[in-house]
Amino acid sequence: MGKGWNFVLISAILCIANAESVRHKIFPTPQEFSEGENVLTFDACEFDIKHNQEKAPIDVNPIIKKYKSRIFGKILDCPSYFLSKRVLEIQIPTLIQEYFPAKIEDTDESYSLKITETEIILSANQYSGLVHGLETFSRLIKPSDNGKYVIENVPITIQDIPRFSYRGIMIDTARHFIGAQSIMRVIDGMAMAKLNVLHWHIVDDDSFPMESLSFPSLANYTAFSLLQTYLKEEIQSIVSYANTNAIRIIPEFDNPGHTRSLGLDPSFNPLVTCFNTHWPYSMPSGPKIQGGPPTGALDPSNSTTYSLIAGIFQDLNFYFPDSYVHLGGDEVIFSCWSSVPAIVQFMQQNKIQTYQALMNYYINKARGVLTSVNSTKTALYWLNEATFYLQVKSTDILEYWGLSANISKLATLYPNNKIVIAPSDVYYMDCGMGNPYGGISWCDPYHSWWSIYLLEPTQYLSANQILGGEVPMWAELVNDWNIDGKIWPRAAGLAERYWSQNSKVNVPSLVTSLNSLIVAMNAQGIGASPITGHYCEINGSFCFSTPS
Amino acid sequence: MGKGWNFVLISAILCIANAESVRHKIFPTPQEFSEGENVLTFDACEFDIKHNQEKAPIDVNPIIKKYKSRIFGKILDCPSYFLSKRVLEIQIPTLIQEYFPAKIEDTDESYSLKITETEIILSANQYSGLVHGLETFSRLIKPSDNGKYVIENVPITIQDIPRFSYRGIMIDTARHFIGAQSIMRVIDGMAMAKLNVLHWHIVDDDSFPMESLSFPSLANYTAFSLLQTYLKEEIQSIVSYANTNAIRIIPEFDNPGHTRSLGLDPSFNPLVTCFNTHWPYSMPSGPKIQGGPPTGALDPSNSTTYSLIAGIFQDLNFYFPDSYVHLGGDEVIFSCWSSVPAIVQFMQQNKIQTYQALMNYYINKARGVLTSVNSTKTALYWLNEATFYLQVKSTDILEYWGLSANISKLATLYPNNKIVIAPSDVYYMDCGMGNPYGGISWCDPYHSWWSIYLLEPTQYLSANQILGGEVPMWAELVNDWNIDGKIWPRAAGLAERYWSQNSKVNVPSLVTSLNSLIVAMNAQGIGASPITGHYCEINGSFCFSTPS
Repeated sequence: MGKGWNFVLISAILCIANAESVRHKIFPTPQEFSEGENVLTFDACEFDIKHNQEKAPIDVNPIIKKYKSRIFGKILDCPSYFLSKRVLEIQIPTLIQEYFPAKIEDTDESYSLKITETEIILSANQYSGLVHGLETFSRLIKPSDNGKYVIENVPITIQDIPRFSYRGIMIDTARHFIGAQSIMRVIDGMAMAKLNVLHWHIVDDDSFPMESLSFPSLANYTAFSLLQTYLKEEIQSIVSYANTNAIRIIPEFDNPGHTRSLGLDPSFNPLVTCFNTHWPYSMPSGPKIQGGPPTGALDPSNSTTYSLIAGIFQDLNFYFPDSYVHLGGDEVIFSCWSSVPAIVQFMQQNKIQTYQALMNYYINKARGVLTSVNSTKTALYWLNEATFYLQVKSTDILEYWGLSANISKLATLYPNNKIVIAPSDVYYMDCGMGNPYGGISWCDPYHSWWSIYLLEPTQYLSANQILGGEVPMWAELVNDWNIDGKIWPRAAGLAERYWSQNSKVNVPSLVTSLNSLIVAMNAQGIGASPITGHYCEINGSFCFSTPS
Repeated sequence: MGKGWNFVLISAILCIANAESVRHKIFPTPQEFSEGENVLTFDACEFDIKHNQEKAPIDVNPIIKKYKSRIFGKILDCPSYFLSKRVLEIQIPTLIQEYFPAKIEDTDESYSLKITETEIILSANQYSGLVHGLETFSRLIKPSDNGKYVIENVPITIQDIPRFSYRGIMIDTARHFIGAQSIMRVIDGMAMAKLNVLHWHIVDDDSFPMESLSFPSLANYTAFSLLQTYLKEEIQSIVSYANTNAIRIIPEFDNPGHTRSLGLDPSFNPLVTCFNTHWPYSMPSGPKIQGGPPTGALDPSNSTTYSLIAGIFQDLNFYFPDSYVHLGGDEVIFSCWSSVPAIVQFMQQNKIQTYQALMNYYINKARGVLTSVNSTKTALYWLNEATFYLQVKSTDILEYWGLSANISKLATLYPNNKIVIAPSDVYYMDCGMGNPYGGISWCDPYHSWWSIYLLEPTQYLSANQILGGEVPMWAELVNDWNIDGKIWPRAAGLAERYWSQNSKVNVPSLVTSLNSLIVAMNAQGIGASPITGHYCEINGSFCFSTPS
């Protein structure tokens, strides 16, 4: 590490004390930065963004236009007497060929930003780095008097790169339909927090709100209504919007459990065992209920089941070009299977001794169906303590939703699989705000942005095995009206932990920068909730101190 | 009770089974109703509302216009060839002289509604009954095909009256500024849930965001900013809008504690003891903090203190014509007072032995100041276990925020005072969603609409002593972005309990009608959160059953 790098590090330490520091404007915390004390002032018409990607296969102009519009509001045709004095020059060594490499670990999200009185240069290697750099740049400019804009703390240099490759949010559009506009607001917020994976739990027991190209009449039966159905063009718009914002969408078709909605279609009803049976549990409090909304599980012994999932995999393959697909695999109720004589007979014929073995038979066969549809896909599966018997391919990814205390068991149980960390007792964002039956949630207490931030994943697993982390937003009590305020600011706790270095945190600085993110989100119409009282929002260092 | 009444009651029981019942459209549950099986169909232009209040001192046309607009959208000038075939005839025996009687117990909120194929009659005795009746009527009409509207279940008769006089929500605009538009949305929601008191905790330690007419420069110091200040005209608009919706506003000036913000004004700073001192506690989790946002308490020994509060009482008297004013009285930190030698000396001179006695000295003197400003005002005070020594006038009202288990003690401790029930362990709506420092809230778990509904106040106190109930929405983590979803649907739990009879609840029906309220609120742009998953919203009887 040369002298220049030392300078950067020392500056980074010094500037934490400065209330107007770059540190307080950018969230998650950049890896390294330095700043000065000068101020650049300019008119919107004196500003331009140039890039060297005119001939690139991926068009970078839409994202540049988005950020220019975010910074300056409506983009005017400027009078000719304005000279562009300030130019943000985007330098990328090669032409951008794709939004993302196939493997998420191969994504180079790094960027560097240099702002001096004579030049503004954003350097990146891939599309993701470009977007993150634009986001950072947009947060450094603020409106000033007389319609001017300023960048403070010049010269600024920032070198930034995330710690972990996968930083995700899961949304659930089966318990409540979430409109495309809301999903796009989630995407906007994710881009601001530099999160990069939107895991879309698109179907479940409650509904299957996706237009299927393989089975065109399916959603007539399985969606709550046609108004509550994602049509082809809508899904494509969402995927395109996400990719433009450097966010992968990973669709989930949870199977063989959680598939009651498929049974609403008469042609598939015979494939869903214990169709409409209530979950075999009752809630700890609240009005007495029958046992929760009805469920069902696909019949692993019926060959038509695999034709059905092949059709759905084809749909997902068409809609979601990303190389990842989530196949669920959680919470199969074995009594659904044991209640069907044909399944019991099938097990005897095939010498399948246990329902766990039957589940592995199904998982393996369904995995083969995915390969036959598209051999390049990587599958993700849910995993918790109840499914530690699950056998998957070593290249597949396990999303762990069990207790945080058991994360470390994965090192022994699944040493060859990459892990996405999503422990329900820390990351589930539905917890602590009641259950759908008026009682308390099964995973109380509430998980705050701080409790989500506090979990350091390398306490449990080697960094090498951790692909990243994800905060799931189960939607029993979430719809268009409250999704923003339930996701934000809490998902930002994960964003900071998985992006920034695990160095000693300065809590007042972190609170100040997180608040600046919330303020920026609100300004974009994203209904993020506040992180603290307004007094503490504007006097962070008076209310917060760093734990000793 | 004659034969007619028996018919009403039997119908009410029978119709619960009908999915389209009136019962499922109105929330809170009306006291008595009957319904038939016919359907009225009409065009908006075939509908009119007539009333006998043209010469009344209170103009009823604004609220009629509001409901007509809510039912039919934009109100068109109808072509002359339409004849008004359907007329809602409003019958009130006398001319309406005022929005409310001085005493809340004297408010007659009853109304009756009769809808047959030949006539629609809404009868009420006072303004509040008129508004509640219009609300009920608006929920019975729904759009149909070809731009028509229908009323189902005709003939309908409803006799309705609340159980308790005071059914309130408290909002806190000191921890976060809540914009006037948001407050008006809260008022809209309250009218829909037939709540009738908005307790406005307008000032606290954090800020004093009210334009003061007595001290015109005050808010320059005490508000977060001038943009975050309620100006005279804005307050008057809010009060007027609330009254038009049959909602009283009771303003709160919490004193002598929680008054640090007053000390931000240099002229009043000497009156605030231990100004800017942190609360002497730390949060149970979350980043280490100094001890919460700073506080302060007015000096009871300084005569200028009473001039200051007189000026503020005059402001409140000017802005809020209602006969109630909340004087706070909670959480005075006695060490603030004991740290001031002049106060210690004052106590010795006046033979005041304890700080509790000093508090009573202050409360009594401040109560006298209120009387001198307006002798007709009734005061409300906060009360919990820590202030059971408090001595107030027997005509004053105590708002109890201690534990629900101790509510019954008030029968002995304060037998002559009316009680507003607001126990923090059941009604505080800030609980269970984190604290402002990233930890869990002090009053976990989350209080759901159901847990709020479950508390039956007459289990603790005689109905005679209970003025009503109130759900406080403390705003450390609440602002314009999330206030709707935090208040609703939970405040509706209180609305049902304090409006309807304490008869055996039919949970599936209650859930269905509560969901219809939420849907109606959403349609009015009120961001109420869902009460359950969408499947259970539309299949209440499958998910819920009545506890045996």
